[in-house]
Amino acid sequence: MADEVEEENLAVWLLAIKTLRIQPFSLPSLGPYDVKIRIKAVGICGSDIHHFKNMRVANFVVKKPMVLGHECAGIVEQVGSQVKFLMIGDRVALEPGISCRQCQLCKDGRYNLCRKMKFFGSPPTNGALANQVVHPADLCFKLPDNVSLEEGAICEPLSVGVHACRRANVGPDTKLIIIGAGPIGLVTMLAARAFGSPKIVIVDVDDCRLSFAKDLGADEIIKVSSIMQDVEEEVVRIRNAMGGPVDLSFDCVGFNKTMTTALQATRTGGKVCLVGLGQSEMTLPLTSAAAREVDVIGIFRYRNTWPLCIELLRTGEIDVKPLITHRYNFTQEGVDEAFETSSRGGNAIKVMFNL
Amino acid sequence: MADEVEEENLAVWLLAIKTLRIQPFSLPSLGPYDVKIRIKAVGICGSDIHHFKNMRVANFVVKKPMVLGHECAGIVEQVGSQVKFLMIGDRVALEPGISCRQCQLCKDGRYNLCRKMKFFGSPPTNGALANQVVHPADLCFKLPDNVSLEEGAICEPLSVGVHACRRANVGPDTKLIIIGAGPIGLVTMLAARAFGSPKIVIVDVDDCRLSFAKDLGADEIIKVSSIMQDVEEEVVRIRNAMGGPVDLSFDCVGFNKTMTTALQATRTGGKVCLVGLGQSEMTLPLTSAAAREVDVIGIFRYRNTWPLCIELLRTGEIDVKPLITHRYNFTQEGVDEAFETSSRGGNAIKVMFNL
Amino acid sequence: MADEVEEENLAVWLLAIKTLRIQPFSLPSLGPYDVKIRIKAVGICGSDIHHFKNMRVANFVVKKPMVLGHECAGIVEQVGSQVKFLMIGDRVALEPGISCRQCQLCKDGRYNLCRKMKFFGSPPTNGALANQVVHPADLCFKLPDNVSLEEGAICEPLSVGVHACRRANVGPDTKLIIIGAGPIGLVTMLAARAFGSPKIVIVDVDDCRLSFAKDLGADEIIKVSSIMQDVEEEVVRIRNAMGGPVDLSFDCVGFNKTMTTALQATRTGGKVCLVGLGQSEMTLPLTSAAAREVDVIGIFRYRNTWPLCIELLRTGEIDVKPLITHRYNFTQEGVDEAFETSSRGGNAIKVMFNL
Amino acid sequence: MADEVEEENLAVWLLAIKTLRIQPFSLPSLGPYDVKIRIKAVGICGSDIHHFKNMRVANFVVKKPMVLGHECAGIVEQVGSQVKFLMIGDRVALEPGISCRQCQLCKDGRYNLCRKMKFFGSPPTNGALANQVVHPADLCFKLPDNVSLEEGAICEPLSVGVHACRRANVGPDTKLIIIGAGPIGLVTMLAARAFGSPKIVIVDVDDCRLSFAKDLGADEIIKVSSIMQDVEEEVVRIRNAMGGPVDLSFDCVGFNKTMTTALQATRTGGKVCLVGLGQSEMTLPLTSAAAREVDVIGIFRYRNTWPLCIELLRTGEIDVKPLITHRYNFTQEGVDEAFETSSRGGNAIKVMFNL
Repeated sequence: MADEVEEENLAVWLLAIKTLRIQPFSLPSLGPYDVKIRIKAVGICGSDIHHFKNMRVANFVVKKPMVLGHECAGIVEQVGSQVKFLMIGDRVALEPGISCRQCQLCKDGRYNLCRKMKFFGSPPTNGALANQVVHPADLCFKLPDNVSLEEGAICEPLSVGVHACRRANVGPDTKLIIIGAGPIGLVTMLAARAFGSPKIVIVDVDDCRLSFAKDLGADEIIKVSSIMQDVEEEVVRIRNAMGGPVDLSFDCVGFNKTMTTALQATRTGGKVCLVGLGQSEMTLPLTSAAAREVDVIGIFRYRNTWPLCIELLRTGEIDVKPLITHRYNFTQEGVDEAFETSSRGGNAIKVMFNL
Repeated sequence: MADEVEEENLAVWLLAIKTLRIQPFSLPSLGPYDVKIRIKAVGICGSDIHHFKNMRVANFVVKKPMVLGHECAGIVEQVGSQVKFLMIGDRVALEPGISCRQCQLCKDGRYNLCRKMKFFGSPPTNGALANQVVHPADLCFKLPDNVSLEEGAICEPLSVGVHACRRANVGPDTKLIIIGAGPIGLVTMLAARAFGSPKIVIVDVDDCRLSFAKDLGADEIIKVSSIMQDVEEEVVRIRNAMGGPVDLSFDCVGFNKTMTTALQATRTGGKVCLVGLGQSEMTLPLTSAAAREVDVIGIFRYRNTWPLCIELLRTGEIDVKPLITHRYNFTQEGVDEAFETSSRGGNAIKVMFNL
Repeated sequence: MADEVEEENLAVWLLAIKTLRIQPFSLPSLGPYDVKIRIKAVGICGSDIHHFKNMRVANFVVKKPMVLGHECAGIVEQVGSQVKFLMIGDRVALEPGISCRQCQLCKDGRYNLCRKMKFFGSPPTNGALANQVVHPADLCFKLPDNVSLEEGAICEPLSVGVHACRRANVGPDTKLIIIGAGPIGLVTMLAARAFGSPKIVIVDVDDCRLSFAKDLGADEIIKVSSIMQDVEEEVVRIRNAMGGPVDLSFDCVGFNKTMTTALQATRTGGKVCLVGLGQSEMTLPLTSAAAREVDVIGIFRYRNTWPLCIELLRTGEIDVKPLITHRYNFTQEGVDEAFETSSRGGNAIKVMFNL
Repeated sequence: MADEVEEENLAVWLLAIKTLRIQPFSLPSLGPYDVKIRIKAVGICGSDIHHFKNMRVANFVVKKPMVLGHECAGIVEQVGSQVKFLMIGDRVALEPGISCRQCQLCKDGRYNLCRKMKFFGSPPTNGALANQVVHPADLCFKLPDNVSLEEGAICEPLSVGVHACRRANVGPDTKLIIIGAGPIGLVTMLAARAFGSPKIVIVDVDDCRLSFAKDLGADEIIKVSSIMQDVEEEVVRIRNAMGGPVDLSFDCVGFNKTMTTALQATRTGGKVCLVGLGQSEMTLPLTSAAAREVDVIGIFRYRNTWPLCIELLRTGEIDVKPLITHRYNFTQEGVDEAFETSSRGGNAIKVMFNL
């Protein structure tokens, strides 16, 4: 089980705004419940790009060099003495956040809200865009033979959609709209379909994104403007496309206009789930929605989602492969190009590293 | 069972802004599932005052003379042929809204959201500030001997508090704040206590109201300003008064500041319940609350609350008698004074007619 | 809208044990919220067969001649004065039970448990195996063009599966077993798949039924015995077939052995849903299941299921057509043969009348 | 923070059936998240008596000498390096089970069902009837000044009642019966009252227990027999005492007759919660209950209950002091007498050691 003459472990460090370097990354020693993983696939997420461009996301500021990356999968290289369910050679997807396991929220099963969470690539915790990482074994989930390592890495963004669908209680009784056809809107759509939603209408301002969403399985697509005055007319179009009441609206954008649309489009007694966090302050017709008992559900990351994501990929219920639009190698050039591509957006949905 | 030589039925009609007249009110014929009630106690509600002052509440406009009043109790005078559970002479509290019983929301048990609801004193449906009304028997709830007709009338506002506590799932695990110590804030407090909340902190701008709330059982009272810049400091004071995290906030006011306070004071993973509907549009830090999975629950009236309200009054778990601050007779003078008193607010919590 | 020179309405009357006759059936007058339906498709249900063989089901005894049939669909022929959402010529599926709409259970949305329910073909209420019936319009659900009247009739048994899945909260996280591959087991399987269950294992004593279930979409089938001593070994085989813990067990049979299997096969913290009601008294290892917090959920008919069933048929998410194994005409000979076929069981899953 | 010249730690060891000895008990070293507690109060539980009498409980067999005791409270003597919320001298109640924190049930917040649970005094884990124990700090809950150490120890049995009430969703809408007026029935009653139940009827075969329950706050008491044939008549008496439908039944005994009573007494759409685990196999009229959608909820220990128990004791909402009927010192004689007293039952409800 030894790896004495190991090569140096390298990782992608964010040194300054738009400055990434592949440099050595020394790992902590392996605890009894840990495994060491040879990372094979890492996707780039919107928050990685935020860090890359701004050295911060919301109140989380990168104050010293930090390894990026948290959408990842790899192969087990070493297992701690108490690890029972994983073996060297197992292919695994990694859940990136380590909660304290001791606070009230952790013990209540809402560990995603733990205030002591250590999360790959969220300052000050280093990420997983590296040759190797050490991680708790119970956060490494074995992949079946028919699920690739790239798909394993996409369990992370897919988890956001799965958690949103669980929190909003999506099922066959839930006809829903998704506002925003970016990566999070798309994984939310894939998840909602797997949860049994019989009708999904996608709303966006961009024709290309809408077209992509349609190809990925949206029942209807609605092009809208970014002008607030258009809300009323757009709500009519949304309801017509739905062919009846909207039980649930996912706002995967999070602006005044998207949230206003969500609140007004949703039927009396329905729900709005706020997934995208665009504006910190919103001006909203909240009262009239509340008086129709339209509840607003908030979302933060995910919890206990990997087993379900992997099962949905295994059965083919969800196919995330079309989301991967670009692939890069783990070289300085590959890293620079990958972040450049992902930053531009455009036709790039998911940019993936193969290590 | 006949009442052939019946005296004329009189009611309080809203004729124009601030113009009320006691005039004849002819009743519909008694259906097989109806009862005729001799009204004995009617409370004045904030929405009655809105109608009185503005001839409208939100989009509901009084277009022709309308009888006011919906918080009421009385004595059964006549019973329809199919009514099994009520007898002449029974003292009953009346649930004021008649839903269609056929739409999807009714059949799902969320009849308070029925779009065809006919609600006492909500245009165009006449109210119950009258000598007699005809009403479906299943919406008339027998009062035990130790619950007075006045208390029966207060089941209506109390129902708002009970419904809010049910929707927000209040229990012994729920430490909560109530923003707004008006009648609705107070009944919400009484209900929350009955649902087992171990700690209730009341927040208001008015010393008198806070003092009244304290006497009625609030654990702590917090005086706040109406200045938005004070929110941060006030949230600190609220948490200190609570002595720990706030699991739930009831906003019984519904303004930018109160809702901002509610969102920021509530702990990660908690809930905000919007009960008061002050402003139609609100500017709010909704995103940061949503990212802590603080859900926002909306409330509209109540459903299936009378049996519980009556039981809570019967056992003494809730005492609503201190809420009745003023009493008037059913005369033109009494009516004018009662609405004047209730309009002024001040030390008037609940103004009650005895008929 | 008149039907003055109408032909005589005929129906299938149960006169005595195994004695059915097509005889005239006079309809009630059309109320303002009613519609008159020309029945076109009626399926035979297990309870029809119970009545046919025994003149009773549980405590419900047929004391005088009664029209059978409750799985039905037809065409609107006449509409009451207050009916807004249906027109003459509309093709509709009928929900067979009329609840009182006034009791606490009805107002809570659990109208299937109403003690005053009037249910087609459950004594003393006549059924719908007739040329025409009069029924409340809100219990007649319009069929889309791509859903046939036969499929409309099957919404009734499918509703049992849908209600069971809702009560048991089936979703993509629910790997489940179904014990009993009869008609109810099969519709439960179809519903569970539509609710997103990723793995369904069917258990039965009969090879033909298991084979049918496999063809209809079961992931795995397990043949078991009717011998209690085999439970332990069979539970091992069930878990192996599942490839992991069983989150939920539907017992669609309801005998000591099936329920014991369900309780023991279900994982700690899972659920057992008792759908089939075979034995009135059961001897069970309930304590050890309860100590693993395995809850037992009971089922009675369904509520608010038709819109969902129709939607699932419209989208093709569920295909019930393979369930229809036999078809008969509405003649005395057809009736006798149909009930004979359905009584024998064997390869008859759903026997359907075309009127 | 050192304790170099510490006296020897002594504990009560179960050596053989009915053979207890106070002998030395060496503690594990203090981990960074642990505290060392000077135990001051330990209650005797029914499972301690089972071990004492039979060297086993269900499948848990005492194979080598084991320290008994798990209802305990004490004073912090030493704190691990990473412990932030406790200080030397703090008075704390101890939650006795240490879960793995890594399995799916733990991460879902249902840690009481963890298969790797190490629980004080459940073989092979030693208990807490000792001068000192070492325990994870997050399972030691600080007591307010007005809650005694004895009350702290009773948080353990009270937790069973609290967990049952949470699982059964007790609130002001829940009128309930409790079958069995032993210690678990009594703490369930106290908890149900705190959760807002407006009417509680206690059922038992023993007059003394019933009288004790009445004094402790039961609304009504019903004496029943142990004869199965009496069930029907007793159910009538129970409903009469309730004055209406029974929403929930707690069976705190767990025999054929008690569970049959629970199933039959509970209203359509209500719940039965099986708390006592008397018989491993039960013969029950489960089908008719399931067909009325009466669900059966199972209970195993508790989770996340200490903060609530302590809060309920702090506010005086629950008073457990009357439950303590006997007190003993931590001497060989005291131990022998205490277990003898507790074994006899009779008027002994809670037997408590003061160390």
